[in-house]
Amino acid sequence: MASVKVYGPPLSTAVSRVLACLFEKEVEFQIINVEMAKGQHKTPDYLKIQPFGQVPAFQDEQVTLFESRAICRYVSEKYGKQGNKGLFGLDLITKASIDEWVEAEGQSFNPPSSALVFQLAFAPMMKLKQDPNVIKQSEEKLVKVLDVYERRLGESRFLAGEEFTLADLSHLPNTQYLVDRTDKGGLFTERKNVGRWWDEISSRDSWKKVVDMQSLPPKS
Amino acid sequence: MASVKVYGPPLSTAVSRVLACLFEKEVEFQIINVEMAKGQHKTPDYLKIQPFGQVPAFQDEQVTLFESRAICRYVSEKYGKQGNKGLFGLDLITKASIDEWVEAEGQSFNPPSSALVFQLAFAPMMKLKQDPNVIKQSEEKLVKVLDVYERRLGESRFLAGEEFTLADLSHLPNTQYLVDRTDKGGLFTERKNVGRWWDEISSRDSWKKVVDMQSLPPKS
Repeated sequence: MASVKVYGPPLSTAVSRVLACLFEKEVEFQIINVEMAKGQHKTPDYLKIQPFGQVPAFQDEQVTLFESRAICRYVSEKYGKQGNKGLFGLDLITKASIDEWVEAEGQSFNPPSSALVFQLAFAPMMKLKQDPNVIKQSEEKLVKVLDVYERRLGESRFLAGEEFTLADLSHLPNTQYLVDRTDKGGLFTERKNVGRWWDEISSRDSWKKVVDMQSLPPKS
Repeated sequence: MASVKVYGPPLSTAVSRVLACLFEKEVEFQIINVEMAKGQHKTPDYLKIQPFGQVPAFQDEQVTLFESRAICRYVSEKYGKQGNKGLFGLDLITKASIDEWVEAEGQSFNPPSSALVFQLAFAPMMKLKQDPNVIKQSEEKLVKVLDVYERRLGESRFLAGEEFTLADLSHLPNTQYLVDRTDKGGLFTERKNVGRWWDEISSRDSWKKVVDMQSLPPKS
């Protein structure tokens, strides 16, 4: 049995970010089902490893961690010598450049894109009312962020340079949902450089494995 | 002249996060004024080092970076052997533990606390209308986050263990404004463990220097 455990459903964008990283690094893992509908993420045992009661939580032997981007950085360092060795760079300056774009994803890209994913893809599925103001404001914010990305990706093949890194990987989960499950995919595919980048990063084997897992019913 | 340059006003919470880190690491730096009122942060030259047109931007000889938390991680690594040596941990597991709480700050603490700072401290100063819904929702979210912190800080002296680290430092800017410039300070000071933690982290020499800089008019 693999020593690395990921708690949470692959349908969660934060869980799938960690899974993409584990596939890139060729780290074996097992998924531990968290029955969120039954409130399992709020039980005292689960809160010991994820104090906010969210997913994912992560375990690697004695180490437990939460927060998907922190888990990705840890996995990239701990398993530095296997799989995609340059995923988090090989020197301090490259690491810092990757890190700034992972932060840009977390601070600038994720808030509007996850709001749109929730409003346009999940709210209808969960029979929740959509909020037109949130949709409008989020789209306006996302457009501004993607304008910056369009310029950046006209200068370099990937966000942090000429190699695929955590900076790009971190954008996969929300973008996949926006392209596949909402009417906002054109924001990505109709931009020359962002569209080219999206084609390239979304066709990686690591990410295709995650998308496959998202379409499977969870094992009980 | 110091080779490290920080672009942006110390009054910005993101700028002051970087300044606190530089003081902890005893790194000399100079502040480069960015005249935001005159739109200097949107000029082509500035956008070369900060493509989103925000503050701070950071320069260390040939290296330029943006995103305050990424800058703090870089500074802690680059200047690992000086100042507060354990600010970002000395081994992979400690680093990961610090990193998860820096992420918790960026993802869970910062959104509601920066919204409250804007609504309650800056909007009145800028003669902008406050949004009671944003204030109410942000306070509710912040209370939940601080409930988690209260439990955590009952188990350990600081967020990532028994030492002051980047995890704590990252919370200083927004908390200082909430305590000093809004009526929400009690959310921190009236909690036993969070209050004790706040007293301790806000009285560090590094942070007092930043607060002093915030009360000075910018040099022209």
